[in-house]
Amino acid sequence: MAKPKKTPRPKAETPKGFRDYFGAEVTERAEMLSKIAGVYHRYGFDALESSAVETVEALGKFLPDVDRPNEGVFAWQEDEDATWLALRYDLTAPLARVYAQYRNDLPTPYRRYAMGPVWRNEKPGPGRFRQFYQCDADTVGAPTVAADAEICAMLADTLEEVGIPRGDYLIRVNNRKVLNGVLEAMGLTDDAQRADVLRTIDKFDKVGERGVRELLGKGRLDASGAYIDGVGLSDEQAEPVLAFLTSKADSADKTLENLSAAVGGSAIGAEGVEELRTIAALLAAQGYGSDRIELDPSVVRGLGYYTGPVFEAELTFEITDEKGRPRQFGSVAGGGRYDDLVKRFTGQEVPATGVSIGVDRLLAALRAKGRVTSSAEGPVVVTVMDRDRMADYQAMVSELRNAGIRAEVYLGNPKNFGNQLKYADRRHSPVAIIEGGEEKANGVVQIKDLILGAQIAESATLEEWKERPSQFEVPRTEMVAKVREILGSRS
Amino acid sequence: MAKPKKTPRPKAETPKGFRDYFGAEVTERAEMLSKIAGVYHRYGFDALESSAVETVEALGKFLPDVDRPNEGVFAWQEDEDATWLALRYDLTAPLARVYAQYRNDLPTPYRRYAMGPVWRNEKPGPGRFRQFYQCDADTVGAPTVAADAEICAMLADTLEEVGIPRGDYLIRVNNRKVLNGVLEAMGLTDDAQRADVLRTIDKFDKVGERGVRELLGKGRLDASGAYIDGVGLSDEQAEPVLAFLTSKADSADKTLENLSAAVGGSAIGAEGVEELRTIAALLAAQGYGSDRIELDPSVVRGLGYYTGPVFEAELTFEITDEKGRPRQFGSVAGGGRYDDLVKRFTGQEVPATGVSIGVDRLLAALRAKGRVTSSAEGPVVVTVMDRDRMADYQAMVSELRNAGIRAEVYLGNPKNFGNQLKYADRRHSPVAIIEGGEEKANGVVQIKDLILGAQIAESATLEEWKERPSQFEVPRTEMVAKVREILGSRS
Repeated sequence: MAKPKKTPRPKAETPKGFRDYFGAEVTERAEMLSKIAGVYHRYGFDALESSAVETVEALGKFLPDVDRPNEGVFAWQEDEDATWLALRYDLTAPLARVYAQYRNDLPTPYRRYAMGPVWRNEKPGPGRFRQFYQCDADTVGAPTVAADAEICAMLADTLEEVGIPRGDYLIRVNNRKVLNGVLEAMGLTDDAQRADVLRTIDKFDKVGERGVRELLGKGRLDASGAYIDGVGLSDEQAEPVLAFLTSKADSADKTLENLSAAVGGSAIGAEGVEELRTIAALLAAQGYGSDRIELDPSVVRGLGYYTGPVFEAELTFEITDEKGRPRQFGSVAGGGRYDDLVKRFTGQEVPATGVSIGVDRLLAALRAKGRVTSSAEGPVVVTVMDRDRMADYQAMVSELRNAGIRAEVYLGNPKNFGNQLKYADRRHSPVAIIEGGEEKANGVVQIKDLILGAQIAESATLEEWKERPSQFEVPRTEMVAKVREILGSRS
Repeated sequence: MAKPKKTPRPKAETPKGFRDYFGAEVTERAEMLSKIAGVYHRYGFDALESSAVETVEALGKFLPDVDRPNEGVFAWQEDEDATWLALRYDLTAPLARVYAQYRNDLPTPYRRYAMGPVWRNEKPGPGRFRQFYQCDADTVGAPTVAADAEICAMLADTLEEVGIPRGDYLIRVNNRKVLNGVLEAMGLTDDAQRADVLRTIDKFDKVGERGVRELLGKGRLDASGAYIDGVGLSDEQAEPVLAFLTSKADSADKTLENLSAAVGGSAIGAEGVEELRTIAALLAAQGYGSDRIELDPSVVRGLGYYTGPVFEAELTFEITDEKGRPRQFGSVAGGGRYDDLVKRFTGQEVPATGVSIGVDRLLAALRAKGRVTSSAEGPVVVTVMDRDRMADYQAMVSELRNAGIRAEVYLGNPKNFGNQLKYADRRHSPVAIIEGGEEKANGVVQIKDLILGAQIAESATLEEWKERPSQFEVPRTEMVAKVREILGSRS
């Protein structure tokens, strides 16, 4: 008789482009987000947790800043009524839906923050995942740039709160309206040509002043040797754009003067310059100097997407990259004003401004600076010398936990004591406790300082070894105190 | 000429069965989960955040406790390689996948906790959502029931930590092996008949002793008048099952004695009784008396699903239900031992035990008891009397925030002062601050105690009104101190 076919075993694998987070990876992020939420809360922002799933209709068919269809999201069709549902790809599209849905019940202006995972149906790459965290704060319904200034101030406070000291970050502010003014002053009214100029400006970060000059003109050879066609402006025509991008001066006043010159007689340009002036004045009044927040027209990220002020937070300290070269850490947050948030739902234009923090990048920065206050230390491990006395060992961990000390009893097969110490090692335990029959009879326990023990084993001479014991016998009644002493000596 | 067709506006709606969470709903849950994580951490459990998306292959085709196909999940097919992906429907299936995938790197036993949303593709109903939070702790790879006892102790500590006082909860422990022993003692070896008995026992909560007796026998008329066929056992045959269900006595010893009698000579039954005895002894040694955790063979939820000890946490205080009748709050957490967690991946049986807390139910319980420490108080609102002096108002909120006080400046159109106070009202602001031109000239500010004001407006007589002013004029330099005084008087 033929054997019944066996179903092959399923593969135990995370789907491609997804990953799992373990222990400290989870708690360090949670602690950072909790600190950020504290600052946002103090600024009067309210938490919002929208559903992870949206109708494709509400989400819109395009990601905000990419010319990409619906394929960028994970979507499926409902059985019941054929509605298409999708996982949110950011926290702004859901905010638009929520605000349109509940606008009569929400305060106006509505300050809200949101933090949570978003999903992108994209080709995964190294360090690029299809699920990642975002952390946003937005003010909806406030037309005044005081709202933008507030977001910048809050961003500065947030970075300091999580552990980036003053001097190690800089928030740079620009304004899309000023650029519009420059284009107007140039007489550039053709939408397609304006879009070309915007796209070119977006490359300023990469190709610099000379590169932009070439790309605005005839074109340029890029690094790969390919020739990139230019926008076709004359040198003279391109000049105001470059004047705008390089108008940053030593003082905000001087920068504003340069910008005023660049926009010539454009009304929208003058409005943009005035907005920047107001933002600078409001921030100065609250004590945020240019060591923390400054006007910088060379900030171009997102200038095509936003409609007014644009801001970006950069970490200015150096790290060593994967090739061992020093480089600046770079951007960890960005945002700006976008005034058509809910228009697609209601037909009404509603002003909004907000910021998004790159959660993973900020966490990486804190780790690079050794600023993560990790509560990830392993537990004290109470070993099991006599499996019939499990109650004794459980009572020990109970005592330790009641004293606020992370502790656990070994719950594997206790037969092989070496396995218990290996387990403690894998758990990064600072301390192991041993109470065999003899210790029990004498009313004592053995306390092993595992970290000191490992240090001694690695580097000590025989004399040092003898002088610095890493195992202590103490009366059972003094167990908690001795453990606390060992843990305390290292914190 | 025909008008170009307009695309209809998208509907601003949460998908059916999904919901959004606002303000305190988000922060109260986050605070509760953070307290729970603290206890889990102290017990040596490590955080795990697995990806929300799994391959359908890894997830398995069935929900754990329901005979339901794949339709219970939200699933879609990858474009690239036709892999089916799905949103996780619980936190146990991902744990199985993670443990199988990383078992060589993880400590054994592996204690892990996880908290986060899960998704069910089910018909939504009142209070039933298709996305909700779970909060689980499991120990994988520990065959000893000391692991089960530990979970019970941790659950008790957790409930007290979040604000359920001792006496208001009870954790009840049962054991599937004892039931198996009873079935063996009855000579019930037919699998189908055993399954029938299990299904019947599962109804004990609803139909009680008499109902189970009828259902084990010939059958019974249910509340709707329909006749439910019974399992067909004789009264004599059914007796041991009922003896088991009703074996709870005044003391653990007596309960264990009753259970011993119920399982007769069954080896597996005796093993189950011994496990319960061990659990009771371990808990007693740590000071968990029967006022917190007790043996109770009438706990039947999940008895069909689990393989060893089963536990359930119940809140014992009364609440008033939607019809105004008092009733017990009921279950908020449950769990037990399930020993084939990773077998489908690796072929190896790995013992596991764990608990899942009903996050929404526990939060509802805390709210019902007034135990939620809400940080959800509205911000102090600094009103805008003169829009040219925004910098002054921003400086005020800055001062308040630096003093740790939640504060914001009004960012809507300041023209209509009434709107500003309406806004403060909608924000549940405790205090509004007013500084018009006259105040500015005199170096003072007006501070309105909005909560006291509302109370007075509602209930005070004219005399009281005069005696208890709710608006104070103080020097500008004393603004923070006065606000603090007002806020402090209410906390």
